[in-house]
Amino acid sequence: MSSLVISIAQLDYHTGNFEYNTQKIIANIEAAKQEGVDLIVFSELCVCGYPPRDFLEFGNFIKQCNQSIQAIAAACTNITAIVGAPTVNPVKEGKDLYNSAYVLANGQIAEIIHKTLLPNYDIFDEYRYFEPNRIFKTVSVKNVTIALTVCEDLWNINDNPMYIINPMDELMQYKPDMMVNIAASPFNKQQIELRRQVMVDNVLKYHIPLFYTNHIGAQTQLIFDGGSMVLSATGDIVDTLGYFEESRKNYQFNPATKTVVPLHETNTQIPQTQERIWNALVLGIKEYFLKQGFTKAILGLSGGIDSALVLVLAVEALGKENVRAVLLPSRFSSDHSVNDAIALAINLGVPYDIISIEDTFAALEKTLAPYFNNLPFNIAEENMQSRSRGVLLMALSNKFGYILLNTSNKSELAVGYGTLYGDMCGGLSVIGDLYKSEVFDLCAYCNRNRIIIPESILTKPPSAELRPDQKDSDSLPDYEILDAILEMYIEQRLGPDEIVKNGFNSQLVQKVLRLVNTNEWKRLQAPPVLRISQKAFGPGRRMPIVAKYLSES
Amino acid sequence: MSSLVISIAQLDYHTGNFEYNTQKIIANIEAAKQEGVDLIVFSELCVCGYPPRDFLEFGNFIKQCNQSIQAIAAACTNITAIVGAPTVNPVKEGKDLYNSAYVLANGQIAEIIHKTLLPNYDIFDEYRYFEPNRIFKTVSVKNVTIALTVCEDLWNINDNPMYIINPMDELMQYKPDMMVNIAASPFNKQQIELRRQVMVDNVLKYHIPLFYTNHIGAQTQLIFDGGSMVLSATGDIVDTLGYFEESRKNYQFNPATKTVVPLHETNTQIPQTQERIWNALVLGIKEYFLKQGFTKAILGLSGGIDSALVLVLAVEALGKENVRAVLLPSRFSSDHSVNDAIALAINLGVPYDIISIEDTFAALEKTLAPYFNNLPFNIAEENMQSRSRGVLLMALSNKFGYILLNTSNKSELAVGYGTLYGDMCGGLSVIGDLYKSEVFDLCAYCNRNRIIIPESILTKPPSAELRPDQKDSDSLPDYEILDAILEMYIEQRLGPDEIVKNGFNSQLVQKVLRLVNTNEWKRLQAPPVLRISQKAFGPGRRMPIVAKYLSES
Repeated sequence: MSSLVISIAQLDYHTGNFEYNTQKIIANIEAAKQEGVDLIVFSELCVCGYPPRDFLEFGNFIKQCNQSIQAIAAACTNITAIVGAPTVNPVKEGKDLYNSAYVLANGQIAEIIHKTLLPNYDIFDEYRYFEPNRIFKTVSVKNVTIALTVCEDLWNINDNPMYIINPMDELMQYKPDMMVNIAASPFNKQQIELRRQVMVDNVLKYHIPLFYTNHIGAQTQLIFDGGSMVLSATGDIVDTLGYFEESRKNYQFNPATKTVVPLHETNTQIPQTQERIWNALVLGIKEYFLKQGFTKAILGLSGGIDSALVLVLAVEALGKENVRAVLLPSRFSSDHSVNDAIALAINLGVPYDIISIEDTFAALEKTLAPYFNNLPFNIAEENMQSRSRGVLLMALSNKFGYILLNTSNKSELAVGYGTLYGDMCGGLSVIGDLYKSEVFDLCAYCNRNRIIIPESILTKPPSAELRPDQKDSDSLPDYEILDAILEMYIEQRLGPDEIVKNGFNSQLVQKVLRLVNTNEWKRLQAPPVLRISQKAFGPGRRMPIVAKYLSES
Repeated sequence: MSSLVISIAQLDYHTGNFEYNTQKIIANIEAAKQEGVDLIVFSELCVCGYPPRDFLEFGNFIKQCNQSIQAIAAACTNITAIVGAPTVNPVKEGKDLYNSAYVLANGQIAEIIHKTLLPNYDIFDEYRYFEPNRIFKTVSVKNVTIALTVCEDLWNINDNPMYIINPMDELMQYKPDMMVNIAASPFNKQQIELRRQVMVDNVLKYHIPLFYTNHIGAQTQLIFDGGSMVLSATGDIVDTLGYFEESRKNYQFNPATKTVVPLHETNTQIPQTQERIWNALVLGIKEYFLKQGFTKAILGLSGGIDSALVLVLAVEALGKENVRAVLLPSRFSSDHSVNDAIALAINLGVPYDIISIEDTFAALEKTLAPYFNNLPFNIAEENMQSRSRGVLLMALSNKFGYILLNTSNKSELAVGYGTLYGDMCGGLSVIGDLYKSEVFDLCAYCNRNRIIIPESILTKPPSAELRPDQKDSDSLPDYEILDAILEMYIEQRLGPDEIVKNGFNSQLVQKVLRLVNTNEWKRLQAPPVLRISQKAFGPGRRMPIVAKYLSES
């Protein structure tokens, strides 16, 4: 057996954009040919983009996948390519599709390997579309025997196995020389370490090298960080392809010794937590705009910490010339809020406007006076202010083609401390998966080299400024306590008794859990949230609305 | 073998409300005992309510399920009860739960049968939570051998089998005397016939009687119509338990002859299409309010057909004393619209207010004038009017505790012909799964005995009245054509070429499909839609947002 030059292509695809994806894949195949590559490996479902979701149920969409595969196969002369795409299940029984790895060589489809373990939890819905593989076979490239699997197929290795089968256990009977896994493994702040550990565990179990190709890019809520990697048979991470960026790197594999030699400079560093969250959010914003053909963002800048952070992230993602900040003060806005907001906009060189909501709010008050009948000022008037801001921002958005960025954080979204159709407006929720305490942490990261967000924004007590001298702490516990309870309920899914046992006041825990459960209706209408945790609000968390569970007052 | 008296309990449960569900189940068991019932059958997951969704991932929720099962079992003396609840999977491998039918007798759990076929399509997510059953066994009650299955287990019987296994095929080896199936089969306008056919097909295949217990009630978007039924071994529907209402009926089963004798008056009638849609929507509204403890609804009454229909449905569901109509005219509202709206409110005896949006709209215009710079009136100003209405309605809602009913139809939602945070506001979308042509049909049904909705509302050309002399037909094709294209794309999932082949203009088809695909972002923030079709917007239709598929202009 001669050695094999393998290229790992960690690329960004656009769901449903077959022309774009196909051209990108073919261009990389052509470039790899010039470099003498024998095998180039792309990521899971790269042909159609990931996740295709219910487009998989459209015959025309599958037809276009097949046409793309044919076009890519035609480019595969003197090279073998592995690409991910759906396959039609030829058998009547079972789901209509497989989630497959196509092996393309000699201008045609040489082999198709189907995914066995179909993730169907959190944001994953793969049993919705795909039949699991039940027939195990390896793939041969230049006499090298490859155990080829798709993403989840390598993940049934830890203490709480989610599946009753293990594809690599089945494939080992064919004595493969190496493993190849094509993946679309989304980012969360804990995922990088977890993913590395899973890959190391596989290599330590099966004692052959592993070439792991992940997707990079963002698709609405989901961010793919890349971090493709090559592991030696002894469990070392030989190289990674970087995080939050496209990359392609080549490796020489010696089947006799089962060793890997990198042909490019290697790097096995991983970004630290704040850096990775920062990069993920920037990528998430950037791609939300890019993939929809938008360029310009607008947001309401309150002088508070949440909108400050979103503004900085937006400027980094889109450029200061593409971001517009609008201050929308009311009679309850403090001078320091307005001044802080202006200072930040100036720091960033972002154009800003000050548009008072007073006239709009006054008109609403006047219009409703005959019906409100001198009833005391309450949540109705608070929401009217927030919604006046929403209407003004959306009007500017509609008039000039801005996309409104939402600035709600996860703590607020969790307890319903926000106004639907008011500050909950927006095309994209940038920090809706960061608890308030994490917002503070990320602002500190932002200011690590120089003060970008003014100190006074970071130090003043959080307030919605919807009534005189209002503070968040009037209605909510300190964020440190609130966030701890929320994390135990949302991420860990602990029950009230368990949370109390961890040292929290029973009444407070009951109140917080009740707020979370009775505000599902609000979150159902929230903008899509960039996902950076293991349990974000959005498609990965599916709660009933009219339920009555832990919702007694 | 002596004969067996079987009671079918078709009841309404409340997700997560363990006390309520448990008490209701026990009360029915006690009543059945008095009637000499041997076996009482409740529906799928009745103990926790259906669908429990991600509450199933909370340990405390499962603990409460188990406690309820214990309490119900304790009531099962001199009677056997079959109830649906999740079971913890004792094996480490696989998902943590089963979806089970508990057989309770002699004060304890006599047997647990797990669901084999886990629906994971449209609104169903059962692979998300449950491990499929792989061990097949029957249940014995007073020496009668019962093939007990859960919902989908009987559905793998038609031309396009979704699963590779058929539980009843496995169970027939034990020569059961009868089948019992516990279900939570949601309503759609075609489901009643389909469900009957599936049950008939099962009986015709297995030649034993079938006792089928379905859920009734509504859970946010999902409506359960009931329609539980008993079928003879020869394929006749012996009896049904009625649609859209709770019911419990008893039957005598003779195991020697495998025949069934109803012990109550029988009825096998099914409601016609408009009647069933009507009843489904009324139930959907009623339960959305009831299960959240709300009583009062508010809605904007435009003088158009959509809000007229929603008002009538709301009055039927909640009572006229609990519904408030608000007319929100602008400078572009026609006199006939206002007059038509008033006539309808008077017809129904519903209190109404006329609240002009002029002051609010004028304040917005004035506030934005320095920024809009005399740019021509366009979609921005149209949306400002719609959002002024939204803010005023939400203010009344917040002040007085009304729930705002949304009045968008499916055609509008499909093509994005509506204003986010404007007419798309609301806690519940009542007719968001009815195409505009279906709205007309249902209005005709509403007026079948006497004119409730004034003729002029039904006959005038649809208009949003957001600019002078605006008509829907300025921007959209005739609804007859639009709805046909939409149905082929959304329900049938045909591609553009196939739709054109069915006789539609190619450019028009491209335009409509593009509008559907580029408005996913708007629908993501729409209120929950009462589901009456096989493919409603909401949890059963999961489309990417930043995709680029059939979205070229």
